[in-house]
Amino acid sequence: MRTLATQTRDVSALFDPRSIAVVGASDDPGKYGNWLAVRALAGRRPAYLVNARRPEVLGRKTFASIAEVGEPVDLAVVAVPASAYEAAVDDALAAGVSAIVGITASLGESGPEGRRLQETIAARVREAGAVMLGPNCLGVLDHTSGLDATVNDFVPGTIALLSQSGNLAIDLAQQLAAYGLGISRFASLGNQADLDTADLIEACVDHEGTAAIAVYSEGINDGRKFAAAAARAEAAGKPVVLLAAGRGQASARGAASHTGSMVTSHTVIQAACDAVGAEFVSSPREAANLLQALVRTTAPTGPRVAVFADGGGHASLASDALEEAGLLVEPFESDTHMRISALLPDSGGTANPIDTAGAGERDPSVFVRVTEALADSSDVDATLLTGYLGGYGEYSVDLAASEVLAAKDLAATVTQNQSCLIAQLMFDTSPAAQALREGGVAVYRHVEEAAWVLRRLVERGKRRPTGVPELPDRATPIQDGDYWNARVTLARTGVPFVPAARVETADELVTKARALSYPLVLKALGDEHKSDRGGVVLGIDTEDELLGAWHDLQDRLAPPAVSVEEMADLSDAVELIIGVRRDPAFGTVVLVGAGGVLTELLHDTQCAMGPLTPSDALRLLQQLRAAPLLDGYRGKPSVNLAAAATLVAELSQFAAAHPEIAEIECNPVAVTPHEAIALDARIILTPLA
Amino acid sequence: MRTLATQTRDVSALFDPRSIAVVGASDDPGKYGNWLAVRALAGRRPAYLVNARRPEVLGRKTFASIAEVGEPVDLAVVAVPASAYEAAVDDALAAGVSAIVGITASLGESGPEGRRLQETIAARVREAGAVMLGPNCLGVLDHTSGLDATVNDFVPGTIALLSQSGNLAIDLAQQLAAYGLGISRFASLGNQADLDTADLIEACVDHEGTAAIAVYSEGINDGRKFAAAAARAEAAGKPVVLLAAGRGQASARGAASHTGSMVTSHTVIQAACDAVGAEFVSSPREAANLLQALVRTTAPTGPRVAVFADGGGHASLASDALEEAGLLVEPFESDTHMRISALLPDSGGTANPIDTAGAGERDPSVFVRVTEALADSSDVDATLLTGYLGGYGEYSVDLAASEVLAAKDLAATVTQNQSCLIAQLMFDTSPAAQALREGGVAVYRHVEEAAWVLRRLVERGKRRPTGVPELPDRATPIQDGDYWNARVTLARTGVPFVPAARVETADELVTKARALSYPLVLKALGDEHKSDRGGVVLGIDTEDELLGAWHDLQDRLAPPAVSVEEMADLSDAVELIIGVRRDPAFGTVVLVGAGGVLTELLHDTQCAMGPLTPSDALRLLQQLRAAPLLDGYRGKPSVNLAAAATLVAELSQFAAAHPEIAEIECNPVAVTPHEAIALDARIILTPLA
Repeated sequence: MRTLATQTRDVSALFDPRSIAVVGASDDPGKYGNWLAVRALAGRRPAYLVNARRPEVLGRKTFASIAEVGEPVDLAVVAVPASAYEAAVDDALAAGVSAIVGITASLGESGPEGRRLQETIAARVREAGAVMLGPNCLGVLDHTSGLDATVNDFVPGTIALLSQSGNLAIDLAQQLAAYGLGISRFASLGNQADLDTADLIEACVDHEGTAAIAVYSEGINDGRKFAAAAARAEAAGKPVVLLAAGRGQASARGAASHTGSMVTSHTVIQAACDAVGAEFVSSPREAANLLQALVRTTAPTGPRVAVFADGGGHASLASDALEEAGLLVEPFESDTHMRISALLPDSGGTANPIDTAGAGERDPSVFVRVTEALADSSDVDATLLTGYLGGYGEYSVDLAASEVLAAKDLAATVTQNQSCLIAQLMFDTSPAAQALREGGVAVYRHVEEAAWVLRRLVERGKRRPTGVPELPDRATPIQDGDYWNARVTLARTGVPFVPAARVETADELVTKARALSYPLVLKALGDEHKSDRGGVVLGIDTEDELLGAWHDLQDRLAPPAVSVEEMADLSDAVELIIGVRRDPAFGTVVLVGAGGVLTELLHDTQCAMGPLTPSDALRLLQQLRAAPLLDGYRGKPSVNLAAAATLVAELSQFAAAHPEIAEIECNPVAVTPHEAIALDARIILTPLA
Repeated sequence: MRTLATQTRDVSALFDPRSIAVVGASDDPGKYGNWLAVRALAGRRPAYLVNARRPEVLGRKTFASIAEVGEPVDLAVVAVPASAYEAAVDDALAAGVSAIVGITASLGESGPEGRRLQETIAARVREAGAVMLGPNCLGVLDHTSGLDATVNDFVPGTIALLSQSGNLAIDLAQQLAAYGLGISRFASLGNQADLDTADLIEACVDHEGTAAIAVYSEGINDGRKFAAAAARAEAAGKPVVLLAAGRGQASARGAASHTGSMVTSHTVIQAACDAVGAEFVSSPREAANLLQALVRTTAPTGPRVAVFADGGGHASLASDALEEAGLLVEPFESDTHMRISALLPDSGGTANPIDTAGAGERDPSVFVRVTEALADSSDVDATLLTGYLGGYGEYSVDLAASEVLAAKDLAATVTQNQSCLIAQLMFDTSPAAQALREGGVAVYRHVEEAAWVLRRLVERGKRRPTGVPELPDRATPIQDGDYWNARVTLARTGVPFVPAARVETADELVTKARALSYPLVLKALGDEHKSDRGGVVLGIDTEDELLGAWHDLQDRLAPPAVSVEEMADLSDAVELIIGVRRDPAFGTVVLVGAGGVLTELLHDTQCAMGPLTPSDALRLLQQLRAAPLLDGYRGKPSVNLAAAATLVAELSQFAAAHPEIAEIECNPVAVTPHEAIALDARIILTPLA
C-alpha cells in the first residue's frame, strides 16, 4: 500500500502532560471550569487552577495567570469566555505550555470574525511549537496515562475515540461498554483550529494502549491528510472506524449550525476509506458492532459461514440473514458433516445449518466439541453461533456452571485455532455471554447485526487498499473547457475520440468531411446542452444529408461552429460514463458508471480517490453491478476493458494535474471489443481558478 | 379490499376452556408433563392430571383416562410419548373434549409414517367437531382468560403471538417486554396438523385483548387461507406482522430438519403480504420494532419528517439515516421555522433538523413546546425525536423530575394531536423513556431502527391492499406447452403476438411468408433453448435470405417445424419480462420485470399474488425501478403501459384458470408507444398434472 508522508505533531503533552492548569477554574457546579478543575485535582499530576478574579477555587489557591504558577505547566485546559480566550492562550504560550485544550465556545463556529480570530490564535500556537485541541471542544482523556481533562466518564479499554460531538462520544462509549469494551484515549475534536482528526489519528498509531480508533466527524477539512493517517493506523494493525455525519442534504444544514464545519459527501468519504482500508459506518450502532469484531475476532478466510444454532428457528433465520447479507451458507463436505453428526442427536441439523436439537441443553460442552470440529474444517471460513446459549443457566445451578464453563472453553478453542466465530445470543448479557466476550468472542443480540458484521469482515478481508494516490505535478492550467477545447485537450493527453473536425462554414464542412468516413455526426458547438436542444444530428449518410443537417442547425441554433465527426459503431459496444470531480476536502475523485439508463436510473456507479493507475481503474470498473456486461454477457463479445481502464486512468491523471478543473466528464464512452472511445466530453473549471 | 370467505374454527375451548386435563402429567421436573401440570394446577380452572401408571402426581390424584374424570373437560393438553398419542386423543375425543393441545413430538415431523398417523388423528379430531393445536408444539396461553397451558412465561400485553418456534417466541417476547409490551395470547403452531396459522389468526380477529398479531412461521401450508385471515385481521384494525424463515436455500434445509414443513420463498410471501396489507419482516428485531410502532404510533401523513434533536451530532445522523431510508428531511416553511425559532436559543437549529442546543438541558419543557409546534405544522408528516433526552435526569434530582414530567406532557401532546412522533434515545431505559412509552410514544435505542420503522409506517400508509385475488373457474387443461402451442393458446386468450406461421417444408415457408411483412424472423420449434443454440434467425430481409436461413437451420438443427414471424420494430420499445408461477402454497404468483440486462443483472422485478386486474397490473409495473423508462424517459415517447398491464392481467387470469401450469413466461414482451406484444412465450406444465 502506498502511504503518504505526513508531518506528525508532538502530542505527548496533550495525552501525558507532567502537569496541568485549568484556566477559568470555577466553584460554580454548573460550569465546565468547575467540572474540569474537580477532575484535574483528582488526578495524579500537579494541577493548578487559574482564575484572576478569585483567590481560591474548590478550596485551593488560584493563580491569576499560568505565568504566575512558577512551576512548569505542560497542558493548559482553557474554559474562559470567548472574549478572554486569546489572552489565555497567549499567557499559556508565554508560560511555555506545550499543549492547549480549548473548551471555550463561540469562536470559529460563530461566524467569519470568530473564524479569523481562531485562525490567528492557532497560527500563534503552531509558531510557539505547541499544539491546540479545539476550541469549542469537550477536552481530552487518556486512561493509559491517567489523564482526565474532560467532563464525562468513560470506561477504560483499548479503543481511541475521537469525536466532534460529545453526545455521540457518550452514545458510542455506552454501546462499547455494553460489549465489555472501553476507551484508551478520548479527544473531543471541536473546531479543529490546530490539531485535526488526522493529527489525532496519527497520535494513536504508535500508542500502545490503543487497539482500534473510532472517529465521529462532521466534516473532514483535509481529506488526503485524513486518509494518509488512517492508512498509517491500518498498516500498524489499528483499524480505523469512521462515523461521518452529513451524508445527505439535511444534515449539511444541521452540521452548519453545529460546529460550523463543512460536510463531505458519503461517496467521497467511502472512496477515501476504500483507498486506505478504513471502515466507514453510518451510525453509532454500526461503529460499536464493527469495533467489537475488529478488536476480538480473527478475520474470516472467506464467505462460507457455518451456522451453529441450538434451535431450528434461530438456525433458519440466521441462514436467511447471512444469505441476504451476501454470504454463503452451503452444505458441508462429508468429512465435516460426519464429524458433526457424531456429536449431535439424530434430530439435529448437521450439514449446515447445524442445530444441536437440545443436545446443548443436556450438556453444554457439546458447543465446544462442535466448535472444535468447525475450527478444523476446511469447508468453513467463519462460524455464526446463534440461539439460546446463555439461557440454559436459568434452568438450574449445575447447568449455569457448565454453561459458563462451555462458553469459556468455546472461546479458548476459537482463540487457540485462530478461527473466526461470532455469536448472536438472545441472552446477550448472561454470564455465558460475558464469558464468551471475555474469552475474545464478539457477541451480538440480533441476527442482522451479526450477519452485517460478518459481511463487513469478509469485505475487509477481500479489500486491497492502494493507499492515498500520489498527485502529479501541477500542469499549465487550461483556460476553456467547452466541448471542442475539452476534446482537443483530452485527445492530446491520450483519450481516444472519433475522428472529427471543427468547421465554421459550409465549404469548410464539405472539405473536412471528405477526410472522414460516413456515417457522420454533426454537433453544434458553444452550447453545453447541445444534445437536449437538438444540437446533435446523428446518422448522416451522404454529403447531401450533411449539408441539410448543417443548414438546419444554422436555422435553429446558429452555432458559432460545428464539430463534424465520424459516427462510432456501437453494435457491440458497452457505454460507460467516466468522470473526475475535485472535492474541496478530498481532491481528485474518480467516478465510473454503467452508461445511460443504468447510471441515471439505477445509480450503478463507483468512486475512488484519484488519480488512478490503469490497474486500479480496472478494479473499479469491475466493481460495477453491470460489470458482467463488459465481460461477454450472454454470448456477446467481451469489450476491451483494459482500454477503458487506461482511459479512466488518463482522465484522472490529467484532472489531478489540473486543480483548476472542478469536473471532467466523458459521457458516453463507448467500449467496444477493440477500444474505448469518448463520444462526448466536458470540462468545468472552478469559478475562481 | 376484496376478502375471501374463510371457515372460522371454534377455538373458544382452546383459549378459554372451562376445565383442563394434562395427559401425561409427571412428577419428573425435567419433563413437559410436569411443567404443564404445575401450571394447570396453579390456574383458576378445574385441572385434572391424567396418568395411567401413577395414582398420584404432584400430590394430586390422577386419572387413568379423561373418560374417568367424570367432570366435563374442555381442553386436553397431551404430553405423552408419540406411541401413546393416538390413544390419548381418542380418549379425549371420547370424553367430549373440544380442544386438544398436542405437545407430543416425533409425529408428523418424523417421516412419512408419522405424517400419515398425524393426518389420521387430525381427521378424527375434525370429525368430532374439536380442534387440535400441534402436535409437536409448546402449548397455548391466554392472559385475557387466565389460561396457561405452556411452559414459558410471557409478560401480559396486547400482542397475540403465534409461533412455530419456542425459542423465537421467547426471543420476540423478551424484546417486546423491553419496549413495555406483552402478550395477549400465545399459541405454539407445531406441526399444524389441524389448526394452522390462518385459523389462529382468525381466532384473534375478534379477540378484544389483542391489538396486533405477530406470527413466526417456517412454512405456510395454505398461502391463500393465510392471506385471507391476515386480510380480515388488518381490516379489523389488527396489524399482522409476519416473520418467516426459509427465505434462502440454506434455511430450507434447516427447516426440513426442524418441523418438517415446506418453506416458501421470500418473494411469494412478500406478494401475499402486499395483497392484504400485512407486514413481512426478516428478524425478531424487525418484528419487535415494527410492533412497537404499530400499537403505539399514529400513522404518518406522508414522508416529510421533522428531526427534533438535542445535539447537533444526533440531528445530523438522524437526518442522514432518514434520507437513506428514503424519507424527506426538508427545510420548514417560514411559519413553522419562526414558531420554533421563538422557542430555542440562537445557536439552535430551527429549520429542520431542529437542535435544542442545550435549551432542553436547562428546561426540559421546551421539548413539549416544540412538539406542540410540530404537531400544528402542516410541513410535518412525522417527527423523529432523537438524542440525549432521558440522560438529563442524571444531572440532578430536580432535572430528573422535570424531565419525566416533560416526557409525560410530550406524549400527551402527541396523543391529543394524533400526530406521528417516534423517539430514538441513548437513554432508552431511563424513567423519561419509560414515561414516553407509557404515554404511547414508541422509543428506540438506535437511529437506524427509528428510521426503518418510520419508512415502514410511511410505506404502510401508501399501500392500497387489494385483498386475496379471486380465482377464476378451472378451464379445460392444456396438454402441451411448447413454443408454438403456447403462442396459439395465449394468442387465443388475448395476448398479442406478431403475425407468424408454423411451417414444415420450404414450399410451405415461401407460401406463408408471402402473407407476412419483411423483415422476418425464423425460429426452430421443438427446442425450448432455441435462442441459445442458434435456432433463431433475426432480420431476414428477402425471400432469398429466408430460404438461406431455412436451409441453415435444417442443416444444423433439423427442427420438426419452424415458426416464421414478422420482426417487431423495437426502436421505441421497452422490453419487459412477464411471467406467472404457481406456488405450491400461495398459488398463482405474477412476476413482471424490466427486460434483458435489467432483469438478470439488476433483479428489477416485482411480484404479486395473481390473478391481477389490469389496474393492479399497472400498479405493479409502476413499482419497477425502471418504471421511468416506460413513461417517456429522456425525451423518448411514452410506451403503452395500459396495454402492458392488460397483457399481464390476461396472462395471470389464464394461468390461474390452468392449475396444471407450473409457469408461463413471455420474455421479452415489447412495449411500444402503441401496443404490448409478446416476442416469445413458454408454458411449463406441472410434471404430475
